[in-house]
Amino acid sequence: MRLQQAVPKPLTPFLGLTLIERILLSLKQKGITEAVIVTGYRSGDVIEKLNERKIGIKLTFIENPEWEKGNGVSALRAKPALENENFLLLMCDHLFDPDILGPLSDGSGRSAMWIDRGLDNIFDIEDATKVRLESGAPGKIGKNLKDFDAVDCGIFYCTNEIFAALERTVSEGKYQLADAIQYLADKGRLDTVDAAGKFWIDIDTVKSLRYAKKRVLDSLSKPSDGAISRLFNRRISKHITCQLVKTGISPNMVSLIAFLLIFFSSVVFAFGERLYLLIGGILVQFSSILDGCDGEIARLKLISSRYGNFLDSVLDRYADSLVIFGLAYGYWTYHKDFLVWVLGFFALAGVFAFSYTNARYEAIFERPGPIRVPLRRDVRLFMVAVGAITNQVMITFLILAALTNIEVVRRIIVVRRFLS
Amino acid sequence: MRLQQAVPKPLTPFLGLTLIERILLSLKQKGITEAVIVTGYRSGDVIEKLNERKIGIKLTFIENPEWEKGNGVSALRAKPALENENFLLLMCDHLFDPDILGPLSDGSGRSAMWIDRGLDNIFDIEDATKVRLESGAPGKIGKNLKDFDAVDCGIFYCTNEIFAALERTVSEGKYQLADAIQYLADKGRLDTVDAAGKFWIDIDTVKSLRYAKKRVLDSLSKPSDGAISRLFNRRISKHITCQLVKTGISPNMVSLIAFLLIFFSSVVFAFGERLYLLIGGILVQFSSILDGCDGEIARLKLISSRYGNFLDSVLDRYADSLVIFGLAYGYWTYHKDFLVWVLGFFALAGVFAFSYTNARYEAIFERPGPIRVPLRRDVRLFMVAVGAITNQVMITFLILAALTNIEVVRRIIVVRRFLS
Repeated sequence: MRLQQAVPKPLTPFLGLTLIERILLSLKQKGITEAVIVTGYRSGDVIEKLNERKIGIKLTFIENPEWEKGNGVSALRAKPALENENFLLLMCDHLFDPDILGPLSDGSGRSAMWIDRGLDNIFDIEDATKVRLESGAPGKIGKNLKDFDAVDCGIFYCTNEIFAALERTVSEGKYQLADAIQYLADKGRLDTVDAAGKFWIDIDTVKSLRYAKKRVLDSLSKPSDGAISRLFNRRISKHITCQLVKTGISPNMVSLIAFLLIFFSSVVFAFGERLYLLIGGILVQFSSILDGCDGEIARLKLISSRYGNFLDSVLDRYADSLVIFGLAYGYWTYHKDFLVWVLGFFALAGVFAFSYTNARYEAIFERPGPIRVPLRRDVRLFMVAVGAITNQVMITFLILAALTNIEVVRRIIVVRRFLS
Repeated sequence: MRLQQAVPKPLTPFLGLTLIERILLSLKQKGITEAVIVTGYRSGDVIEKLNERKIGIKLTFIENPEWEKGNGVSALRAKPALENENFLLLMCDHLFDPDILGPLSDGSGRSAMWIDRGLDNIFDIEDATKVRLESGAPGKIGKNLKDFDAVDCGIFYCTNEIFAALERTVSEGKYQLADAIQYLADKGRLDTVDAAGKFWIDIDTVKSLRYAKKRVLDSLSKPSDGAISRLFNRRISKHITCQLVKTGISPNMVSLIAFLLIFFSSVVFAFGERLYLLIGGILVQFSSILDGCDGEIARLKLISSRYGNFLDSVLDRYADSLVIFGLAYGYWTYHKDFLVWVLGFFALAGVFAFSYTNARYEAIFERPGPIRVPLRRDVRLFMVAVGAITNQVMITFLILAALTNIEVVRRIIVVRRFLS
């Protein structure tokens, strides 16, 4: 089923952004500062919806009333705005992993097309534009090639030769961009760039849109995720994130809400009775899940920020402290055993020293530490949640204090060996 | 009074190193990996005392039995080892701030001499080699120039032209390096490099040795020092450091001793009685002073290491935690007021969060934070020491908790403003 045209295709909603916003933000992430957008169907709507300030790169709009003729005619419209410059030529309905662009260089002086040789993994290969390679360079290009080596990803690096090619093909009544690209290939003026396994997709049907969303959502996990995140939290948080991106809530606001939730659970813990521990424990685990959403929203909307990263990590440390404090206070209220303060102290110091050694290592060595233990925040909060739910505060503190502090000592030794 | 020759001059002890070790380590710090050493008086002693492994750069020794003729003859001896290479030519009795070397480049293809134009600040200008500049380049060079613009720092960057010059001047019976340098200057083959206010000194007399030690010791403070460090700790620690460098104790060992001292004070604090608090408070302040010595020794011996930095900072965090714990425990033992645990908890979280935000900022932004508050560790330990000595545990915790946590909140706001 092809996409319904309730909105112009560039404005198709995609996990909190429109398709065209996502493409423009991908470009921005790769250091591109300016885009020329040729609009066609319901041009006014597209122009109105794109906010230059929100996107953060300079946008120039060119309207093409003849858009129905073919995308070659649209591309040619950009000529006045792009003379004397090389540029990337993209489609508003092709999504891609920004890393597919790689470092761009003007080396050869020729134009280039991105191609994907992984023919087994092309979504809807029937509908794709195929490419037959001749001694490494593009030979024949077309939808109906029987014998082909790769598929066109819909991403082009262009010198101004593309405009001469378009003028020629359009004047011959061939209105598709592919015609001009074929013309460049015939003249030996077209290189290829390998997609090298990076994700890209042509969004044409409801099915392709759904598949693209799934791929993007699945890519939200972080390599630094602990076991609980990977096996449990992410599976839930990505659905929450899916809903949250629609509301326009900012990642930092989500960080703050996750923090307030932990704050609230520590207040609940402070009552000390079994039922309160149970409720607080569940809240802690929920907060731990929600704590994944801020980063997910930021990555989905391509607005990850160093400030967000900083804020999130500082709030996490306070959240950790409050949870330990709440549990200790509650236990004290109920049992009047001052040992809980002693253990709580060492758990707090351990948890903080654990995160501190990570940050300090990164600060000194300017790269993440050689530190891989199953004791990340998701795992620690899970231990706290289980400890609270099972009413085992002292044992939880003991385990937390032992594991974190032993790990810090191990790091001091490992880092030393690592350096010598 | 000229230096007594109980040891050959290169082996003159200088704050834990010999003069020549200090020079070689300065070179290593600037990325130089190889040195050719021409020895003269008591050559065997010099060669025996220099440990290639300890210095960490490749050492090649060349003995010059004719050393008494003049330093030009010694320099010429290095020719076979240095053909086809440009190199730095240094004196074993000229100490310098390694930064004086700056980035070395082969740009001009000419040799260069370091000169100091700050004539008012030259130590023992009488004895210095003077330089008269002629349209920017060195004209006349000599000890007895009446009219001069700068002074020769005893540091030269040489192309192989220096050997041709030396061969020429030595064959004419002029045995001083200065003769060959003058020869290069006359041929227009000598540039200058400006010392630009960086410290250097020719060590010839007991007085100059004493002055050099004072200058190097005074440079041990860090820009990040807090008020207590600057006004109090450093004045004592540098004398302790002066003694410690003679013993060969490693900086990391000193970090560990300072940590054990704090550990011991926290045990003393845990007794809770007034006298114990008084003793513990004094110990804390002494440990704070000693905590400056590890870095001082490392900087003095030019062996600052990233591991030392890491270890020191992690031990500091545990020391901070232990002191707070000890005070809380002692107060609890004596007064049975559980509020001390509550305040202690917030003080601990605040102190940790204070250091954590610093480290985290550096890790994310790869530079030190925009954070300048009079709350560094020296100041915090001073507050603890005063609080313990005056028996005001609760108030100390209250102040610590308030100041550190407020500062962390301020940082969250400042960093945000700083980034937008």
